[in-house]
Amino acid sequence: MDYVIIRKINKQPKLKNPILIEGLPGIGNVGKLAVEHLIDNIKASKFMELYCKDFPPQVFINSDGTTELVKNEFYYWKAKKKNQRDIIFLTGDYQGLSSQGQYELVEKILDIIEENNVKEIYTLGGYGLGHEIKNPKVLCATTDKKLVKIMKNFGAVFKKNEPGGGIVGASGLLLGLGKLRDMQGICLMGETPGYLVDPKSAKAVLKILMKITNITINLSALEEKAKEIQQIAQQLKEIESASIEKTEDLKYIG
Amino acid sequence: MDYVIIRKINKQPKLKNPILIEGLPGIGNVGKLAVEHLIDNIKASKFMELYCKDFPPQVFINSDGTTELVKNEFYYWKAKKKNQRDIIFLTGDYQGLSSQGQYELVEKILDIIEENNVKEIYTLGGYGLGHEIKNPKVLCATTDKKLVKIMKNFGAVFKKNEPGGGIVGASGLLLGLGKLRDMQGICLMGETPGYLVDPKSAKAVLKILMKITNITINLSALEEKAKEIQQIAQQLKEIESASIEKTEDLKYIG
Amino acid sequence: MDYVIIRKINKQPKLKNPILIEGLPGIGNVGKLAVEHLIDNIKASKFMELYCKDFPPQVFINSDGTTELVKNEFYYWKAKKKNQRDIIFLTGDYQGLSSQGQYELVEKILDIIEENNVKEIYTLGGYGLGHEIKNPKVLCATTDKKLVKIMKNFGAVFKKNEPGGGIVGASGLLLGLGKLRDMQGICLMGETPGYLVDPKSAKAVLKILMKITNITINLSALEEKAKEIQQIAQQLKEIESASIEKTEDLKYIG
Amino acid sequence: MDYVIIRKINKQPKLKNPILIEGLPGIGNVGKLAVEHLIDNIKASKFMELYCKDFPPQVFINSDGTTELVKNEFYYWKAKKKNQRDIIFLTGDYQGLSSQGQYELVEKILDIIEENNVKEIYTLGGYGLGHEIKNPKVLCATTDKKLVKIMKNFGAVFKKNEPGGGIVGASGLLLGLGKLRDMQGICLMGETPGYLVDPKSAKAVLKILMKITNITINLSALEEKAKEIQQIAQQLKEIESASIEKTEDLKYIG
Repeated sequence: MDYVIIRKINKQPKLKNPILIEGLPGIGNVGKLAVEHLIDNIKASKFMELYCKDFPPQVFINSDGTTELVKNEFYYWKAKKKNQRDIIFLTGDYQGLSSQGQYELVEKILDIIEENNVKEIYTLGGYGLGHEIKNPKVLCATTDKKLVKIMKNFGAVFKKNEPGGGIVGASGLLLGLGKLRDMQGICLMGETPGYLVDPKSAKAVLKILMKITNITINLSALEEKAKEIQQIAQQLKEIESASIEKTEDLKYIG
Repeated sequence: MDYVIIRKINKQPKLKNPILIEGLPGIGNVGKLAVEHLIDNIKASKFMELYCKDFPPQVFINSDGTTELVKNEFYYWKAKKKNQRDIIFLTGDYQGLSSQGQYELVEKILDIIEENNVKEIYTLGGYGLGHEIKNPKVLCATTDKKLVKIMKNFGAVFKKNEPGGGIVGASGLLLGLGKLRDMQGICLMGETPGYLVDPKSAKAVLKILMKITNITINLSALEEKAKEIQQIAQQLKEIESASIEKTEDLKYIG
Repeated sequence: MDYVIIRKINKQPKLKNPILIEGLPGIGNVGKLAVEHLIDNIKASKFMELYCKDFPPQVFINSDGTTELVKNEFYYWKAKKKNQRDIIFLTGDYQGLSSQGQYELVEKILDIIEENNVKEIYTLGGYGLGHEIKNPKVLCATTDKKLVKIMKNFGAVFKKNEPGGGIVGASGLLLGLGKLRDMQGICLMGETPGYLVDPKSAKAVLKILMKITNITINLSALEEKAKEIQQIAQQLKEIESASIEKTEDLKYIG
Repeated sequence: MDYVIIRKINKQPKLKNPILIEGLPGIGNVGKLAVEHLIDNIKASKFMELYCKDFPPQVFINSDGTTELVKNEFYYWKAKKKNQRDIIFLTGDYQGLSSQGQYELVEKILDIIEENNVKEIYTLGGYGLGHEIKNPKVLCATTDKKLVKIMKNFGAVFKKNEPGGGIVGASGLLLGLGKLRDMQGICLMGETPGYLVDPKSAKAVLKILMKITNITINLSALEEKAKEIQQIAQQLKEIESASIEKTEDLKYIG
């Protein structure tokens, strides 16, 4: 099979100079939470699903008893005002499980957004501090020096040598591999303890993103969304333990 | 080499609108036990073997001293009555060992059954509870909403959010990837402690499957079959430990 | 790069109906020891080397200070008497490290010997008992029932359900995948404690192999050969620990 | 995506009979430290970057807030005197993470230097002793016997059976796979405790390399360079722990 199976969901209108906003699972699920809240609030439309052999071999079960293959999802949103831009959103259940899978998958994602004329990428994530924080700041890194100043004006923070070891995963790779295709990239990382799904950190990220995109949304329902994701996370944790056992069974019991 | 080597065993008659019933090794070996018992009882005929590089590099030894490369197997059965349907069975020694291998292998299996005009997939497995259970229920999940009601009528149970983390392995992937090919899928999971080969759980699954397929078989010999599989499982456990040591030897002793 | 790099060493005469005798590193290094002793004694000629990306990324250092990429090696020997047959030998530093690599590599090996018209494969290995043994027997398994009787006549032993979990690694796969190409296969496993290089077990295997091949060699120098291999094994064990540390360094120290 | 993405940085002059000098991360970072110090001192010019899917999915963050995809780098230097030769340098952030990746990557590197007519490879590394050492010697191994004598004259040391298990990683593979392309190879290994970035060992290696290349550089700033690399190594160690947690989060928190 191909590394990725693409399934188009709806006919998708031609987008004008769109930006990509990515929020996949990660530390504190900050990126996923922020993007899913944004998608819900501005009623973005799903137009594509990605299935990938570097995801776990797993289906989820919906509340109505139907199954759902684990996936990544693309949504689009058309600008409503003159100072806004068309947006493509990327979210999903998993990032690639292996290093090589991350590279493969991000290249496929870049292929897709390149076809949609995306020249600017925003990736959202959490910056794990390992301790509680009252007013999380939003750290930033960009592909180009001139973007640093612009992002500072929006309230993003640049700390020398932080995150010390860089950005690991799709949020980093989209910037790194995207730059090789002449795409500009900005990563916004909300400070977070990192242990639980963190709506406070997602709120901090969204506040800056609202300034960047000239979109205003209601942030009050963010806690609800966080609870929902936390519940799924909890179940995944359980199935994870179960599936580890299962894997061992698979090996041991013929 | 190709990911999968296909070996046709016997000439296979044209099947009419067949269903697939899958039972590969897994929790409590419920699926494998149920399918192998069914194959034996209705005298289904093997027509194909699959060898896969995501299986362990291993041959088993038959009781007559001959070797047997580890594999998956396809059987067929022609309907005897008007209210029955032709069936293809899938069972085997192993599931793919890696996530990616699971995807590759399931796609190949779907290729094969698609060529045989399968539009409906039943996957059997165990739902591990981690504790003893007197009367195991049979949980169910389906690809389509309308199948939920039908399966309830056959006695399958739908519990909201269970299994919480979905279905991992071939039983889940066959449904998830099959749906992308417009195949309907039903997964039947017998409740089981999950530690040993579980004939009680397999019996519960088979009772529902008999209603679905309008096939009546004798379930009394199921315990015999379970002992046989348990014995192999025990040996596999031993070789597993041995082969882990061997692998280490392979690395250490040149 | 291709999975395997083949390097032809010497011009190789056309072989007449040759058999393959394989002895790669494994439990007690029984197979490797037996084959290398045999190669030395009958002065077989190397004609091919295989390099494989499923081997460790490693060169050995010869006693003269030159480097040697880790490899597998093919030797040939032309029959001297009427009751003997031409032989191809396979030995080497490593087996493939991964399951998938084992399949890939064995398929390549089968390609090579198929070109040389091999129809019969003998694989040698150790059967680890985990305890000392005074007079090691030689267990056997074959691809075909008729070979069982023949091998019994040569003194090989068939024990029902032993080895319980079959044969793992190249010695098993060569039989399993070779059979799919209509090659006959025999695996001879010398009983061994399994911890150290075991010349006693190799001697038992060679005694039977001498009867099969009608070749008589001096077995007295086997202990010398064992010491040599044990020394390398010891060094590999040390580098293994070192390289594990190194790998961690590679990850940690940029 | 291809295994490796090549990005040419500057127009590169035709090099005359150049040698390759490689120093990638490894034990004590001896090779990387030596090569980077040399590049800085003789002002070699970068002409190519390699990105590889066997590197971690990671961007580093420069002090100005911009991102940098992890990579390997090629530099060139044109000879200034008659007794010098043109040089290509290879250094970088990582070696391939997997065995197979190491083979793939080294083959690509050999493709690149072959196009640049390189016939002679010098690989630099550390030889980990596990204890402090006052005057580190420089061990050597070569692809050809005649090079052994030459290297001895430059002060390199050959100890029988050391390193006992050979050379693991790019420094070894470049010699092993390079030889299959008729390239000569020399590996220089500075003795080092192996725990920290080791400027003393790098200095010992560079002293011999200066004799070989007829290049004289100032070694006094080596400690500065070592501190810099140690700092990055420290940060990588931290991110490594963080990213391990992150990976677990990725799996557990959907």
